[in-house]
Amino acid sequence: MDENAILIKNAFVLSFSSNIGKADVLIAHGRIQEIGRDIEWRGATRINADDCYLLPSLANTHTHIAMTLLRGFGENLVLHEWLEKKIWPAEARLSKEDVYYGAMLGLCELVRGGATVFNEMYLVGIDEICKATKKIGIEGVVGYGIIDAIPNAINTARTFVEKWKDDSLIKPSVCCHAPYTCSAETIQKAKEMARRENCLFHMHVSETRKELFDILERTKKRPIEYLHDLGIMDEQSLFAHMVFVSKREILLCGKRKITISHNPISNLKLAGGGLCPILEFDEAGALVTFGTDGPASNNGLSMLETLKMAALLQKHRYWDALALPAKKALQFASLNGWKALGFNAGDVAVGKEAELLLLKRIPNLIPNHDPFSNVVFSARDSNVFAVISGGKLIYYDGKMLTVDEKAIAQEVEERAKELVRGL
Amino acid sequence: MDENAILIKNAFVLSFSSNIGKADVLIAHGRIQEIGRDIEWRGATRINADDCYLLPSLANTHTHIAMTLLRGFGENLVLHEWLEKKIWPAEARLSKEDVYYGAMLGLCELVRGGATVFNEMYLVGIDEICKATKKIGIEGVVGYGIIDAIPNAINTARTFVEKWKDDSLIKPSVCCHAPYTCSAETIQKAKEMARRENCLFHMHVSETRKELFDILERTKKRPIEYLHDLGIMDEQSLFAHMVFVSKREILLCGKRKITISHNPISNLKLAGGGLCPILEFDEAGALVTFGTDGPASNNGLSMLETLKMAALLQKHRYWDALALPAKKALQFASLNGWKALGFNAGDVAVGKEAELLLLKRIPNLIPNHDPFSNVVFSARDSNVFAVISGGKLIYYDGKMLTVDEKAIAQEVEERAKELVRGL
Repeated sequence: MDENAILIKNAFVLSFSSNIGKADVLIAHGRIQEIGRDIEWRGATRINADDCYLLPSLANTHTHIAMTLLRGFGENLVLHEWLEKKIWPAEARLSKEDVYYGAMLGLCELVRGGATVFNEMYLVGIDEICKATKKIGIEGVVGYGIIDAIPNAINTARTFVEKWKDDSLIKPSVCCHAPYTCSAETIQKAKEMARRENCLFHMHVSETRKELFDILERTKKRPIEYLHDLGIMDEQSLFAHMVFVSKREILLCGKRKITISHNPISNLKLAGGGLCPILEFDEAGALVTFGTDGPASNNGLSMLETLKMAALLQKHRYWDALALPAKKALQFASLNGWKALGFNAGDVAVGKEAELLLLKRIPNLIPNHDPFSNVVFSARDSNVFAVISGGKLIYYDGKMLTVDEKAIAQEVEERAKELVRGL
Repeated sequence: MDENAILIKNAFVLSFSSNIGKADVLIAHGRIQEIGRDIEWRGATRINADDCYLLPSLANTHTHIAMTLLRGFGENLVLHEWLEKKIWPAEARLSKEDVYYGAMLGLCELVRGGATVFNEMYLVGIDEICKATKKIGIEGVVGYGIIDAIPNAINTARTFVEKWKDDSLIKPSVCCHAPYTCSAETIQKAKEMARRENCLFHMHVSETRKELFDILERTKKRPIEYLHDLGIMDEQSLFAHMVFVSKREILLCGKRKITISHNPISNLKLAGGGLCPILEFDEAGALVTFGTDGPASNNGLSMLETLKMAALLQKHRYWDALALPAKKALQFASLNGWKALGFNAGDVAVGKEAELLLLKRIPNLIPNHDPFSNVVFSARDSNVFAVISGGKLIYYDGKMLTVDEKAIAQEVEERAKELVRGL
């Protein structure tokens, strides 16, 4: 038997596939082995979960994890000044070690916020982001963000994919930054590489109005029509943001079964003024998932917070308190997200990869009238009691078990101060 | 010297009145006595706050705290069915003991979410809500919600005010439920009583479109114009919600210096479709504050969550990332809220009542580029490390110090199940 086996005793289980209620759950060899009453297993680490919900951990399908280093930097500027005067000059100074520690800090926050997988795009130090992910002990889909302004970007992306494609925890992806920073040729070449390597293709699309009109002017097509005509849309394509889209674009996304990463907090914070129509994407057949975006435009990495925000905003948008019920919202945040990133996880069911959360119910998840509603609308990071990833316990009762958070925080504090000196 | 004296060592202090940075803070006799370097005080409880922010605690200016009992009950119904088939029948069964335990649970959550004062309106068991507040050890402004459909409601309200007006922790208020459940005569009589007793007058106003049009039809005036003409608007009037208002109504509120309680999460969850124009109220001279509303329409009581949501929604509303800067948002949530409820608190300054929070900065409040932005956009309940109310430590390192949360949760769990049986 697996020496890392975990036996969760008497949790209230939330599953999409069946009505379980109170049960024991046995985890070994990275998977859920058994769900039932009165399970015993010698040698397993036993967790008393009497006052906890057990649920699938969440999947963060769009972020730039190392941007913790720039959290709160240049807050009171409009977008282009923020980027040009603050973020880009600071990012130009980033060392690989900066990115490593920034990612470590971000990953601690990610885990504390209920996620055990993330979909990353970044321009500097992506090898270090992978190393940090393995150290923390969760899964990462990681890619180098290709832009035409950087020479040999496609080769850099190719080298990265080659290096990581057989790793146990990291899945390399191919990322084009956006349709306005990459040419049609670059986008097609990158997607070709992604298809050849069986990788996820990840891109920012239609985040702002300006971008929509720039592409419309340049190509005479809306962004999704343009990308569709490039032949790059399929089940292995993930587009982040997707705020300013027409009905026709939504239908194209559904037909090609692409993945949408909805990042509501970042969209509100950067004040683009729109909201991704996730219910229409879902209805059309696209795979709807949620992301936090980077911690410099959120300013955090909590998927539990994102889940509540996303559900509330749909009700507000449609003047309909019944829009996006809790169970479906949780499915978007877990099951759909894990599927989009290529994992057999996101549910509590025998055979699924053990990517799980225990949420302590006292005080704010009491009473138990509606467990799914409690998780979506009442749960917060403060309820996260234990986190299991790859079948291993990585967070328990207030502590990261795999890294020294205090030492990481100290490193980031000092490096962040240096990074922005004089800017 | 006060035996409850507290010495906070080496916190990073956020104050509205001065730039303090790292300092020690001495608290005694319920007030902040000294802020400086290397303070020592024999006999004081010493808190090492090396990795914490110290800031004023938040004021929740509109809630129905005991509705924890109905959290998540009847989630998938439209508003009027939810009220008529679920909430009202369940509330009709509420015993005083139910309300006591429901309030206790809600107050634990309130404290864990960063607030140490709340403005309450309820129909049943308000004496028990006051008792629960005293047991938890925070401040409460509490009132009986007058509606014309209940006989002698004004007398009930009067008896309640008489009973509690000299209490040390409770300030009784006079509440009219809403302009559509109380006649003009009732509203004027109630306000008269509030003026005589020097109490806050608290009412729901303009929460839904329907209400606006009903009042317009009945009185030929918009709700605020109607209330203004009744002569009941002054600095001691607090109106909750205020979503559907005209420019003229905003100006009337500013002229009369009334308090607005903005409840963004509840407004989104109940899907009224609008947002209170808080920046315009602020500019007009009204006092803008934040509330959670009851935990059955939120579904929680975290003021830290409310603060982030309120700030994000203003940026979204105006397509302006600079709308409602972090420091001002925190001021609405703390300084303005405390002022509205009649306390000399809501800031870290010598002489202020000691209503304070320590937020642990690791991992998600690192680095320190912008402390106010960190508190508003990155802090969550999970960062709350210590809470001080009335100069006393009531929450520390994961534990409520004044009550047994587990026992309370168990009581509420059982009572809530009984309460909804058969509904």
